[in-house]
Amino acid sequence: MTDSADVPGTLAGEPGISAEPRISAEQREREAEVTEQVLRSFADCAEPRLREVMQALVRHVHAFVREVRLTEDEWNRGIDFLTRTGHITDDRRQEFILLSDVLGVSMQTVAVNNEAYGEATEATVFGPFFVENSPEIEHGGDLAFGAVGEPCWVEGCVTDTDGSPLAGARIEVWEADEDGFYDTQYGDERTAARAHLSSDADGRFRFWALTPTPYPIPHDGPVGQLLAATGRSPMRASHLHFMVSAPGRRTLVTHIFVRGDALLASDAVFGVKESLIKDFHAQPPGTPTPDGRDLAGRGWSRVRFDIVLAPDGA
Amino acid sequence: MTDSADVPGTLAGEPGISAEPRISAEQREREAEVTEQVLRSFADCAEPRLREVMQALVRHVHAFVREVRLTEDEWNRGIDFLTRTGHITDDRRQEFILLSDVLGVSMQTVAVNNEAYGEATEATVFGPFFVENSPEIEHGGDLAFGAVGEPCWVEGCVTDTDGSPLAGARIEVWEADEDGFYDTQYGDERTAARAHLSSDADGRFRFWALTPTPYPIPHDGPVGQLLAATGRSPMRASHLHFMVSAPGRRTLVTHIFVRGDALLASDAVFGVKESLIKDFHAQPPGTPTPDGRDLAGRGWSRVRFDIVLAPDGA
Ligand SMILES: [Fe+2]
Ligand SMILES: [Fe+2]
Repeated sequence: MTDSADVPGTLAGEPGISAEPRISAEQREREAEVTEQVLRSFADCAEPRLREVMQALVRHVHAFVREVRLTEDEWNRGIDFLTRTGHITDDRRQEFILLSDVLGVSMQTVAVNNEAYGEATEATVFGPFFVENSPEIEHGGDLAFGAVGEPCWVEGCVTDTDGSPLAGARIEVWEADEDGFYDTQYGDERTAARAHLSSDADGRFRFWALTPTPYPIPHDGPVGQLLAATGRSPMRASHLHFMVSAPGRRTLVTHIFVRGDALLASDAVFGVKESLIKDFHAQPPGTPTPDGRDLAGRGWSRVRFDIVLAPDGA
Repeated sequence: MTDSADVPGTLAGEPGISAEPRISAEQREREAEVTEQVLRSFADCAEPRLREVMQALVRHVHAFVREVRLTEDEWNRGIDFLTRTGHITDDRRQEFILLSDVLGVSMQTVAVNNEAYGEATEATVFGPFFVENSPEIEHGGDLAFGAVGEPCWVEGCVTDTDGSPLAGARIEVWEADEDGFYDTQYGDERTAARAHLSSDADGRFRFWALTPTPYPIPHDGPVGQLLAATGRSPMRASHLHFMVSAPGRRTLVTHIFVRGDALLASDAVFGVKESLIKDFHAQPPGTPTPDGRDLAGRGWSRVRFDIVLAPDGA
């Protein structure tokens, strides 16, 4: 399927107007007039950008309704779906972000806002699990704060697109525990498996995290029902979230993924990019750790992630 | 503005893909690939109609994001808007229906589902104020049940598109009081200004209602804020709601509007159709009533509304 499918069944020169022969000219006229009226209603909008966005939204949503000949029952189901999505959303659960994510609207917005720029690291979805004011850790510190999982040594360097190291970049990292839960899903006020640190004078960073494991997005709500009804899995490929910012640089929101993960091709929110798949090297129990930390005989893993930030406004 | 605006700035043969010259081929490729991935994810959907609707929704929403180059800040404001819309919605207030109404999505759906058919009465928006199990009234009965307003005598005949009277059609009628409130907005459990009756053996009906007056849609929530920000009025043209059903006939959901109402051209939900504007004849105080009802010296009005139902499935 290609993007030219955006206007199937249309007459040449009349994109978005259905050309189904059984629809009379009078009927097509009536449908077009509804859209025209709505577009005109925004003529007095004082803010040009708001007018542009609202008029475009109206054109595309109306074209959708006409193209699929949306039934009143389907419209009702849509209203009910949005209502349930609103009612399950609270300070700790954001079902509208999940909806945007599983429809790829989040990734499309990420793509539009993070245009390809030289060797800059690719962005991916933000997701609903970031929390402000994470604890700060030192280099070599551990972001687990009690979250369970296999230790994972993460190291890398932050540079600009010319390869110059960026000192003092703020690196936020967050992830699910080995049971697939973020701290915001624990049902208490604990903070775990999230932290921030700053790149050192050479742009480098190193810390302990947990080896990422797959988890389902919350699927006990309307979005989960939508995935089930459409034969889709709620599973996300294993990943570790990053948000990296530095003065004069475009803030990067991304993940790294685990090479070999069977879920890479079917990530529920379309977040996987080939360039973000990294080798997580398994380290058998007893392997010495980079910082001499004693892991009491447990196995661990290590990964390298070098981060390249585009200039601001790129 | 015309519907061909559905794909502004596009390359011939690539509708929906932005042709802004500053966007590189690599960037356009990345954006198109996001949409492709999402469309493919619905390939295993067992219900063909659900797959069709979801894929079309994805194509149109992605095209919107690409066309307006939706910023991440705008995306966040959208998520916040939907969240607030969900939180204000409850059993008695349906902000998502209001949203659909003020974007003309409701009227577009009405248009698609009530195709022009001979002389069949035109449909318009359902609105959020219908309530099941309204009280039944006799012919000549009064639907006010204590709601305040000028009495209005309503009469007419229900026929099919051949002009044959339809006996026993169920006629649901509901409206706001003269202060602009529906009973569901009173804050108590009263039922007022709504009722149903059946057409008689000759297809005729007659009852007392209230002369319709203009009212704003509820505008103390997110939808009201959207209207204010875009320079639009929340006012609806004066109207009386009808839902008319009969065996073998397409159920008609419509209003009648008041000829001469200054708001006819700027109805907040785009519900006005020329064919639905009726003459409400003012009757000075003391004018005898059709059924001899004593109105204690008050003025009243009268209107005729003949209803033509299309066949089911038309
Ligand atoms: Fe995640
Ligand atoms: Fe109304």
